[in-house]
Amino acid sequence: MRAEIISIGDEILIGQIHNTNSVWIAQQLTLIGVEVLHMSSIADTEEAIREAFDAAQARSELIFITGGLGPTKDDITKKTFANYFKVPLVINEAVLDIVHTFFTKRGRELTEINRQQALVPEGSVVIMNFKGTAPGMWMKKDKCIFISMPGVPYEMKAMMTDTILPKIKTEFKLPAIFHKTVFTNGIGESALAELIEDWETTLRRSGIKLAYLPQPGIVKLRLSAFGENLNELQNKISLHIKSLQELIPQYIFGMEEFGEETQSLQQIVLNLLKEKKESLSIAESCTGGYLASLITSVPGASENFKGGMVPYTNEAKHLLLGVNKVIFDTVGAVSKECVIELAKNVREKFNSTYGIGISGIAGPGGGSADKPVGLVWIAVANKNKVIPIQLQFGDIRQNNIVMSSNAALNLLRKFILKESLD
Amino acid sequence: MRAEIISIGDEILIGQIHNTNSVWIAQQLTLIGVEVLHMSSIADTEEAIREAFDAAQARSELIFITGGLGPTKDDITKKTFANYFKVPLVINEAVLDIVHTFFTKRGRELTEINRQQALVPEGSVVIMNFKGTAPGMWMKKDKCIFISMPGVPYEMKAMMTDTILPKIKTEFKLPAIFHKTVFTNGIGESALAELIEDWETTLRRSGIKLAYLPQPGIVKLRLSAFGENLNELQNKISLHIKSLQELIPQYIFGMEEFGEETQSLQQIVLNLLKEKKESLSIAESCTGGYLASLITSVPGASENFKGGMVPYTNEAKHLLLGVNKVIFDTVGAVSKECVIELAKNVREKFNSTYGIGISGIAGPGGGSADKPVGLVWIAVANKNKVIPIQLQFGDIRQNNIVMSSNAALNLLRKFILKESLD
Repeated sequence: MRAEIISIGDEILIGQIHNTNSVWIAQQLTLIGVEVLHMSSIADTEEAIREAFDAAQARSELIFITGGLGPTKDDITKKTFANYFKVPLVINEAVLDIVHTFFTKRGRELTEINRQQALVPEGSVVIMNFKGTAPGMWMKKDKCIFISMPGVPYEMKAMMTDTILPKIKTEFKLPAIFHKTVFTNGIGESALAELIEDWETTLRRSGIKLAYLPQPGIVKLRLSAFGENLNELQNKISLHIKSLQELIPQYIFGMEEFGEETQSLQQIVLNLLKEKKESLSIAESCTGGYLASLITSVPGASENFKGGMVPYTNEAKHLLLGVNKVIFDTVGAVSKECVIELAKNVREKFNSTYGIGISGIAGPGGGSADKPVGLVWIAVANKNKVIPIQLQFGDIRQNNIVMSSNAALNLLRKFILKESLD
Repeated sequence: MRAEIISIGDEILIGQIHNTNSVWIAQQLTLIGVEVLHMSSIADTEEAIREAFDAAQARSELIFITGGLGPTKDDITKKTFANYFKVPLVINEAVLDIVHTFFTKRGRELTEINRQQALVPEGSVVIMNFKGTAPGMWMKKDKCIFISMPGVPYEMKAMMTDTILPKIKTEFKLPAIFHKTVFTNGIGESALAELIEDWETTLRRSGIKLAYLPQPGIVKLRLSAFGENLNELQNKISLHIKSLQELIPQYIFGMEEFGEETQSLQQIVLNLLKEKKESLSIAESCTGGYLASLITSVPGASENFKGGMVPYTNEAKHLLLGVNKVIFDTVGAVSKECVIELAKNVREKFNSTYGIGISGIAGPGGGSADKPVGLVWIAVANKNKVIPIQLQFGDIRQNNIVMSSNAALNLLRKFILKESLD
């Protein structure tokens, strides 16, 4: 099954935005065994759209189109579709209902422009958009299926996940395919590659593909096997993962099978807290609220997360978290002593089972020979014990913030599991 | 002058990497007045390359190609070029010298594979690669110029900046081009479109293009003008922006010219605080640390941001921020009364000029008929005054968090500027 992806919109062509939609769609299709052989970004003109459709039709069976479906005037995609398929645009009542509800809920009136969002080419299967107002469309022409979606990433992703990918899997016979991803924290991509070189060779010899998916502080390893029999593929991958677990137990913090909901590190930690009926609070300086926002991005976090503080100045660390002023004058705010105080005191203030303290130099300014940019101290405390660690990251502020937050979560995870912390 | 960009390589098609090269090239071309009308990502096969070249030649005068020039076997681009242009590959001595130096410097021997990197299609102008070993090529065929570069970003960028862009500016007369983007907050895309419909019509009649670029809580409007005289274009766009400012002053929070560094809302607010030598602290419940992390994502934020609190439970709101328990029992934590207390008390605790308080229902759980998911209260306080506002967003947790944070920043911006808050 061959697919291609067409992105419509000038903002990509002038380099104003990254085409993250195409990347995500390509990932999803690759994962279910659909081959993506072409991607293009084109202007929002009838001529460009027709030309792209003609070319795509000659090459591919599944054609994914994003963009050009919003309510404003620069969007001419839908009209072009109708012309291309030689059918009129008709109001779809189900879509009109959704659009209506969307606006009523927000206490806003339905305008003529909004009403037009419910127009779809006659004969197309409508893909409902529960996250916005522009519907998606699934249109068959000769041997090709054209699938049109809005360019807004979260609307497009919801449509793909909820409707389109399941529909493709139902309607077409795809090869058996199995992916499993192993999550690691605490080791960089190239160091990890060296460490698992022999394992990787064996893996590839057995026909399993491996992809390194690095993000700040986390490297994910995705194993992919293709074949006829799903059980066989699963067994094969399980054996290789078992030997990886024996090889690098200290770095693995989770894994997932494709199709399962991704378990983020913060989700894993919140699940542990929930299981044990325990709670957490945090005092984070250099991560500036990022760790709290990671944790609270998980729905229902409030059950086990009591809250956080961002004491961004020494004054705030002293006044609000009782860090002794002597610490600032002697070892400084980026120190073992300071994060121990932060972790212990925030735990007491919020009356939680665990407390996390973080203090570091995110950069680009504030570094010194002694304490360079990227130096971070983290501590985790419960009522009996406090464990501080020191880490050295790089020069990039945002990466340092993300890596420190992930490291703190993983330190807490190990603390909870009473694992070795070496 | 019309251009397009072709990226060769499977790693893009399976969604393993983002095509950052195309975005960067498009930005550079747009800035010098070359119009990019098509981008494509294709497989590393002779068939795909020939097809892409044929299509590009029919549309564009400048064709930029990245990828497919490395030393490994999966790179067949160069051979395909030679076949396509019906010329042989010949060794270029200058390139061979560079390749030789490159390897000698690193104490490595020059292999036959490396020597082949100096092969170029006969008759092409070689673009030297001072950052790596694969040369670039500039080839004229009929009315088209094909420019081939390596896919390694820093090699490609050096070639573009040092050689290719100057060569294009010398060899072709390019039109003047000017873009300016206006940032709005507090109004959705379709409501905005209705509000500025007449203005937009006038704008388009004068030959200026308009694009709506929506993201959660923010809609950017990009105006683009093309012509002969840059000054004229700038003046024309300035006039239209002036009339837009008169039309919707309450929604505009910033603007940028293309090529300037983007000013985020948090950056704009921090700049205002810096100018006035004032400071900020925040107490955010439903945004869970996201607002603090937005603010602290700006380097040097610590000069004017004293810190924040994430009182995620009622207990924490009471214990740490002195919110009266009566409020929870009567009007609840998501209320005007609560955010007023949060804003006033956090300001006092941190001893800052301004305090922000946020409390709402991010969802998906926690909503009721009275207080549905997406309801958010925000207050901004200084020592004399406190201003609360109520907002109703949608169903999506992450969007509600982002939109609430942006709304809070914009409320503070207006507060500081003593603007009308209606």
